[in-house]
Amino acid sequence: MRLYLDWNATTPLRPEARSAMLAAMDVVGNPSSVHAEGRAAKALIEKSRAQLAAALGADGADIVFTSGATEAAALASAGRDLACSEVEHDAVLAWCDPLLPVDADGRVEVRAPRESALQLANSETGILQTLPEGLALSDLTQAFGKVPFAFNWLGCDMGLVSAHKLGGPKGIGALVLRQGIETSAQLRGGGQEMGRRAGTENVIGIAGFAAAAEAAARDLANGVWEEVAEIRNILDSALSDLANNTISVGKGASRLPNTICLIAPGWKGETQVMAMDLAGFAVSAGSACSSGKVRASRVLRAMGFEDGLASQAIRISIGPGITRDDVLRFAESWAAAYVRARARAA
Amino acid sequence: MRLYLDWNATTPLRPEARSAMLAAMDVVGNPSSVHAEGRAAKALIEKSRAQLAAALGADGADIVFTSGATEAAALASAGRDLACSEVEHDAVLAWCDPLLPVDADGRVEVRAPRESALQLANSETGILQTLPEGLALSDLTQAFGKVPFAFNWLGCDMGLVSAHKLGGPKGIGALVLRQGIETSAQLRGGGQEMGRRAGTENVIGIAGFAAAAEAAARDLANGVWEEVAEIRNILDSALSDLANNTISVGKGASRLPNTICLIAPGWKGETQVMAMDLAGFAVSAGSACSSGKVRASRVLRAMGFEDGLASQAIRISIGPGITRDDVLRFAESWAAAYVRARARAA
Repeated sequence: MRLYLDWNATTPLRPEARSAMLAAMDVVGNPSSVHAEGRAAKALIEKSRAQLAAALGADGADIVFTSGATEAAALASAGRDLACSEVEHDAVLAWCDPLLPVDADGRVEVRAPRESALQLANSETGILQTLPEGLALSDLTQAFGKVPFAFNWLGCDMGLVSAHKLGGPKGIGALVLRQGIETSAQLRGGGQEMGRRAGTENVIGIAGFAAAAEAAARDLANGVWEEVAEIRNILDSALSDLANNTISVGKGASRLPNTICLIAPGWKGETQVMAMDLAGFAVSAGSACSSGKVRASRVLRAMGFEDGLASQAIRISIGPGITRDDVLRFAESWAAAYVRARARAA
Repeated sequence: MRLYLDWNATTPLRPEARSAMLAAMDVVGNPSSVHAEGRAAKALIEKSRAQLAAALGADGADIVFTSGATEAAALASAGRDLACSEVEHDAVLAWCDPLLPVDADGRVEVRAPRESALQLANSETGILQTLPEGLALSDLTQAFGKVPFAFNWLGCDMGLVSAHKLGGPKGIGALVLRQGIETSAQLRGGGQEMGRRAGTENVIGIAGFAAAAEAAARDLANGVWEEVAEIRNILDSALSDLANNTISVGKGASRLPNTICLIAPGWKGETQVMAMDLAGFAVSAGSACSSGKVRASRVLRAMGFEDGLASQAIRISIGPGITRDDVLRFAESWAAAYVRARARAA
């Protein structure tokens, strides 16, 4: 039986999201139409917006629904010339200047918060950042739903979130704006989202996102991710017991409860992913969005790892419901494959 | 019982789309991931792309999935400085220069096809255009699924389509590109869609779009829209019999089989929409995307109607399943309300 250990790439759809999406399928109207059918669709969007704001701790902030965090990054960043670091996701890095230094623990030093972007959690290593007061933009995609925070207390102007990282559908995300912060609309040609984002809204996706966010916030409050962290720690220990030359990146740092970034010297990350895939486990090398490309991890290089080690890492990212037995089964399979890989290389 | 007569704004979700979306909800992986779960998601997208291409008569063309026709219009138009006319949808008009003349029948004269955009069908009047050979861009949104065409025979470089106009979900569309035509990617920060459109794909929406398009093409081939045209013609006649001073715009022209653009002199379009909404009928004044704004129809003004008449129009747009009895019930209710409105105004 296959085991999915790539939750930072995307997550299974939560039952709450599925139910909300099914219900939204019966909402016929266009949210911009003024008749009853249109108003019902609009009401569903506004209810979802309020649900998402509550889950984010962003009451009073503006939430602009987009086709995902990538579009939200474009909407937030265009025309701002923000500084950032090399550990940002491609979607943010595409728009900003990677001037900010990264230390060996993956921590970024921000010099001018009002002109900078800094992620809350890294997708590859799980390493968490302390956001400086007054930060322009934070990519909250990986942190949202996994670690507790309230947008209104982060002290940043803009935040990016994505549904499919916390049990919602793919293709829907949002830009969160502190009150009074404006964007220059990227998608023109319609008055939707208060003029900030033209185009008929993804009503079904929005409903699924809000339901997933609400369920994720509830799980988080109920300690579900502390249990995930325990399982992750069991896996982390098992991996280092089974192969003592490995590096668990960020193990000492504050990081997401579900993530392990594991360097196995001498064994290419891509080869590890393929070997584990054949053995029935889904893990990744780098972020999914760039995982088609065979290269060293930009994130690990920014932390000072040389190209060789930076290309010998995999990411294992777990979620609720994955058990101790599951991760030990993975650890044994992985360690045996590593032994075989080293024997072949010798 | 309410009657939904605003199919050009958006359509009810087809059962085929619903089933495909439900099945896609069980596809866990990120389409960019290389493991089996990722490849399954990618395979679903590619199967959907082929389904959509077949429904569009666009075999061999490139299809770029977007968050809707609005985003597809931006992707197609950015950096091209296309000419167009005032009858285009806001999503196209936002990017082009409305230089092209429109005649009293709503027909647009294109001077330089390679530098022009021209819709195939108008959303407000249903009026169809003959596309000149070598046209740069055509908005196919309203025509797709309602009138037969094959993209490969239209002679245009780029086409825009949207799922929710033909029974698919809102928030998903596509840009269709003749082979060899390139775009400058608008959404950066990921290699998805062959580098043309970054961001994790809306897998569930894409599956729903493809299933809806396939079902729509089948319905069209089976003559479903000829039956719709018969019902529309019954409504058109009933309305002119009941109120002989009205104008059915484009009645003599070649137009969509489901659309009536009706001018009722002396009765504001917005007031008509509200009166009909209260009476249980969903119709619209202008396109849904601009229907919040109280103003004369840009499309009707471009055809030479003065501001007064251009603000006294409603659009009635029907779809399969709407019966003769349904539309006669609407016609009688509408005509009685028109009599009352004129009595109040007198």
